[in-house]
Amino acid sequence: MKKLINAPADVVVEALAGLAAAHPKLGVDLEHRVVYRADGPVPGKVGLVSGGGSGHEPLHGGFVGFGMLDAAAAGEVFTSPVPDQILAATQRADGGAGVLHIVKNYTGDVMNFEMAAELAEGTEIATVVTNDDVAVEDSLYTAGRRGVGVTVLLEKIAGAAAEERRGLAEVAAIAQRVNDRGRSMGLALTSGTVPAAGKPTFDLPEDRIELGVGIHGEPGRRRIPLPSAKEAATLLVEPVLAELQPSEGVLAFVNGLGATPLLELYLLYGEVAALLDKHGVPVVRSLVGPYITSLDMAGASVTLLALDEELLRLWDAPVDTPGLRWGA
Amino acid sequence: MKKLINAPADVVVEALAGLAAAHPKLGVDLEHRVVYRADGPVPGKVGLVSGGGSGHEPLHGGFVGFGMLDAAAAGEVFTSPVPDQILAATQRADGGAGVLHIVKNYTGDVMNFEMAAELAEGTEIATVVTNDDVAVEDSLYTAGRRGVGVTVLLEKIAGAAAEERRGLAEVAAIAQRVNDRGRSMGLALTSGTVPAAGKPTFDLPEDRIELGVGIHGEPGRRRIPLPSAKEAATLLVEPVLAELQPSEGVLAFVNGLGATPLLELYLLYGEVAALLDKHGVPVVRSLVGPYITSLDMAGASVTLLALDEELLRLWDAPVDTPGLRWGA
Repeated sequence: MKKLINAPADVVVEALAGLAAAHPKLGVDLEHRVVYRADGPVPGKVGLVSGGGSGHEPLHGGFVGFGMLDAAAAGEVFTSPVPDQILAATQRADGGAGVLHIVKNYTGDVMNFEMAAELAEGTEIATVVTNDDVAVEDSLYTAGRRGVGVTVLLEKIAGAAAEERRGLAEVAAIAQRVNDRGRSMGLALTSGTVPAAGKPTFDLPEDRIELGVGIHGEPGRRRIPLPSAKEAATLLVEPVLAELQPSEGVLAFVNGLGATPLLELYLLYGEVAALLDKHGVPVVRSLVGPYITSLDMAGASVTLLALDEELLRLWDAPVDTPGLRWGA
Repeated sequence: MKKLINAPADVVVEALAGLAAAHPKLGVDLEHRVVYRADGPVPGKVGLVSGGGSGHEPLHGGFVGFGMLDAAAAGEVFTSPVPDQILAATQRADGGAGVLHIVKNYTGDVMNFEMAAELAEGTEIATVVTNDDVAVEDSLYTAGRRGVGVTVLLEKIAGAAAEERRGLAEVAAIAQRVNDRGRSMGLALTSGTVPAAGKPTFDLPEDRIELGVGIHGEPGRRRIPLPSAKEAATLLVEPVLAELQPSEGVLAFVNGLGATPLLELYLLYGEVAALLDKHGVPVVRSLVGPYITSLDMAGASVTLLALDEELLRLWDAPVDTPGLRWGA
């Protein structure tokens, strides 16, 4: 295993320290492994908290900042943060208007966020659980569908709603709407390697890919021969469209899982856009790049979000985080 | 070889089409493989043109837009664009106030940009050649030092100067100052794979890294055992500091070469920042992420730019490109 690290046990805390050092608008509580807005909590604003296992960067710590999250709790690589960490993040985000927990649907995450919400006495908590991955119904770490790419879009859009000083119920409803209107599907060309394990999470023959892979390398639908980019676009977009049936324009998000270069992601995006055009689905906004990754896994996922007027406006609103930044 | 592509021969043109599809503010001339500002050329503004072999994305096409480049010419992967392409880019960028060619110091690039400048009759051209890589004096494709990470910073800063409607000589002088005040060094953990070659460019044993590697996999200074991140920071920063001896604050740029995850890049950044602090070098700005890559090579480079008041102000100015965006 070749990685630019010191000791595997220190990877997460050292990476968080580096993130905070690079971005003066962020603070980091290294004891609880919580990244938070240095100017927070923002009085009167609904606080947005997310978190989960590390290894998906920039998700979640890289999405802390104006217009997106107020705090994020980082578990060990591919391991849920514990309730105390989530509680610490919740306190960092609590500006007196309630806190929204944004949770990807993995059994450990859901349980630990629930426990943290119970511990956060005196703070009103709402929770949204993302479960946008159409690949499989249940999975290695999940009852029901997995939460993947839509989480990025939800954190941006709900974050913009919170900046408008909407109340907790409204922000939660918008977040829920994003989840309900978004679907994803991914594929892996190679496995990633967890630093503490020191070897690839799974083996994939040189001529096979994993279709419907999860962001921790969980098995997907099936292993198939390496498709062309055009075929890959079809394999990813069709199952999403079959469920989503968007009547208006979509946000098309082509996400890199880590080791796949931007050259390939843009090439794939071109195929995705052409296919959507063939289906008569207008692409109103797009996002291309590695935003929810799986360490050094090669592969990509496609997320489609059926926009409406309000979601589009909130997507376009200014944001200032390490991972997404515009208009600010 | 596993890549999300169609035919290897079509990779560059299909990726450019995808880039333009994803970013409506960009246009693409597929015949000449030129990415340009859709609202350009901007009358009265110095035009900025860069280009080079593909495989380094987001460099250069991803840095076209307000506050940075006006046009970029994309060669085949790791191959210089030909003079006709650079000429087409120059025409797309020519708003009547002259055009600055930003050229990384590789023999083919330098020669072809020179020929394009001769062909561009009626357009005043100035040229800056970046050569910031301290690793080796001459290299596989280079007489003198290679141009690497500083190119990203130069395109941003010179682009801001051009937006202020500074004249060609002034923009060129600022660009030259960025190159003179910036130095870089990189290391590779693995080789990247050129699509048309279908196999890794070079072999590197599992327990060795290439110190001082170039962005095409050119040999560096030596092969050494895999260092810790702390040791890697020392190996990259010390040779840069030995030459740069910054008296004021620096911009510290930790760049990913492609397959190295953000988790590791931030961890490395933390070590770089700690080392600079030990040397008494204040870090005034930072940039962490994959901005000048080498396909799917695992590894990283460090660039330090000795800022002054003007360079800092121009760095902070608004920019709106796929690869760098803020304040716009």
